[in-house]
Amino acid sequence: MNLRIPGPTPVPSEVAQAGAAEMINHRGPEFDALIRRVTERVKRVYQTEHDVLTLTASGTGGMEAAVANHVTPGERALVVTIGEFGKRFVEIVDAYGAQPVELAVEFGQAADPARIDAALKADPAIQTVLITHNETSTGVTNVYLPEVAEVVHRHGALLIVDAISSLSSIPVKTDAWNLDVVVSGSQKGWMTAPGLAFVSVNERAWERQAANKTPRYYFDLRKARSSLEKGETPWTPAVSLFFQLDRALDLMFEEGLDAIYERHRRLARMTREGMKALGLELLAAEGVESDTVTAVKMPAKVDGSKFLSIAQQEFDAVFAGGQGSLRGKIFRFGHLGYVTEEDVRAGLRAVEGTLAQLGHAVAGRA
Amino acid sequence: MNLRIPGPTPVPSEVAQAGAAEMINHRGPEFDALIRRVTERVKRVYQTEHDVLTLTASGTGGMEAAVANHVTPGERALVVTIGEFGKRFVEIVDAYGAQPVELAVEFGQAADPARIDAALKADPAIQTVLITHNETSTGVTNVYLPEVAEVVHRHGALLIVDAISSLSSIPVKTDAWNLDVVVSGSQKGWMTAPGLAFVSVNERAWERQAANKTPRYYFDLRKARSSLEKGETPWTPAVSLFFQLDRALDLMFEEGLDAIYERHRRLARMTREGMKALGLELLAAEGVESDTVTAVKMPAKVDGSKFLSIAQQEFDAVFAGGQGSLRGKIFRFGHLGYVTEEDVRAGLRAVEGTLAQLGHAVAGRA
Repeated sequence: MNLRIPGPTPVPSEVAQAGAAEMINHRGPEFDALIRRVTERVKRVYQTEHDVLTLTASGTGGMEAAVANHVTPGERALVVTIGEFGKRFVEIVDAYGAQPVELAVEFGQAADPARIDAALKADPAIQTVLITHNETSTGVTNVYLPEVAEVVHRHGALLIVDAISSLSSIPVKTDAWNLDVVVSGSQKGWMTAPGLAFVSVNERAWERQAANKTPRYYFDLRKARSSLEKGETPWTPAVSLFFQLDRALDLMFEEGLDAIYERHRRLARMTREGMKALGLELLAAEGVESDTVTAVKMPAKVDGSKFLSIAQQEFDAVFAGGQGSLRGKIFRFGHLGYVTEEDVRAGLRAVEGTLAQLGHAVAGRA
Repeated sequence: MNLRIPGPTPVPSEVAQAGAAEMINHRGPEFDALIRRVTERVKRVYQTEHDVLTLTASGTGGMEAAVANHVTPGERALVVTIGEFGKRFVEIVDAYGAQPVELAVEFGQAADPARIDAALKADPAIQTVLITHNETSTGVTNVYLPEVAEVVHRHGALLIVDAISSLSSIPVKTDAWNLDVVVSGSQKGWMTAPGLAFVSVNERAWERQAANKTPRYYFDLRKARSSLEKGETPWTPAVSLFFQLDRALDLMFEEGLDAIYERHRRLARMTREGMKALGLELLAAEGVESDTVTAVKMPAKVDGSKFLSIAQQEFDAVFAGGQGSLRGKIFRFGHLGYVTEEDVRAGLRAVEGTLAQLGHAVAGRA
């Protein structure tokens, strides 16, 4: 199966096998060594000297941890949304009793730091800004994230970044860009099965946590930090996923982070060019296309759900549909994590073949 | 390694291998079939016709879901504690802004339904009661749970049960005993790696949820239920652990639930008799000893942490120490999930050998 969705992504067989190793005591010396070895390397991928905590949860759990630990009930928090996952931050902020102020960017576009600056000037009470680095739902990367961080800090606010589908595939310079809280998840570029979320926390964010009264327990990052000092997690961790992640990190450092980023850039370009060669249009504006997922407009008259089922049944390729208001209007092609040129080529052939079966004449082949 | 802790428990190799299967789309037809097949069988183990939701989290996440969805900020909730995991419920209730009223039972004893009745009479404002079915920290089963449920409902309150370390190893009759919310976790009798939590919810509990204003998102059981109707989870699930659980359920139904319960009873008895034959005392009072974990008093003058490290290094047996106020005073021997007579015998030999190395003369061998 050519799993071409933006996560969960294919798990290399040696990583999958590593997860089948004999179970261990999560409060014993083996796990102590494992979590320290994993954390040290996850921090290198994050490009941070600050803390990174690993939670047993999916990426949304990491987003919730970021909100529950840093956003105060009643506060007005600016949420910059460029797609569905930005809207998820709006929902979480709202669920936790804060007031989300949404700065909605047209789907397909990246956020403009000048608009964020204006929003913060207009509403000086805002102390927290939340943003998605790479929007899986639209195939857009918020390429101006370093400038956004500069604007947010100029206003004295805290910046929380969902980098679930970018970090480990696209460079994210947590410390150099001064990102206060950054969330990622195992099932994306990390080549590990879903179930682990990562949250980095710098000193500014720890200070915010100390004063925050929001209810939290399972996702309390202070508990995660004090347990990590003892080589543990506060609650039983997903041990088999730590085994997988440990092996996946071996593979990542064997390939080298720069080589990984370059491979993602190359395969993304190949995907985009392949789609255009088929006469298809991308949702993302030029210059802000994501290097981990490409969102393609569904040609008029092509039924989105038929497209997905034929691609899978006839061409063994699994794509993702559109979410929310984009349902039926786009399909999404993932090219992150454990992915090769041949996977992308096979994916493009599947797109072409599926469209042909659905009677859509592709470019140059009418 | 003879992993004799009360969880995570050993994972049978075919279950571990099942987790290494090729990754799938969590929003595709394969996962749809998987979650329906798993849920139907988890419900049979729960002995319930009501809903059971599977969350990507450890057991504590399941406990938090039970509290966040059902306990209202400000309300007084009775927490019956017979050990550390009961105290965890106290902490979660407190973290979520409710007022825990603790009914603390002496460690080693089970809760007396008459005391719960008295506590509810004395404080008629209490609408929720939380209790641990099987206390991993003390090796005690709250054997009077059916009577407790009767008392709680007579007072019109809701009953939330932590059955993490009992359900699937010890009979828990969710519907017959009228248990409103019951939590369990994959890493115990379910023979699956840690990372999935189960929460059952009956109609009375759903009604409570509808009116509850507590902040919740990742653990919002209403979202889990509406996604399950579509064969999905609201957030990316721990797919590889679902693969494992699916295979583990095959093994469980091949053995048969009654045979599993009988095996646990037999191995627990063997463990207790073996300990007594070594001249060791159990923490649990007679008649309330757990069939999944035995807590053994550390003999005077034996250093608890040396005991654990020698048992592992010299005898390849991994036991758990005491938690909280019991640290250093007991060790705990797990006999749940994928465990055989030979595992128990080897564990007992390891206890004997370790004590001998530490200069403690075991019974009859001075």
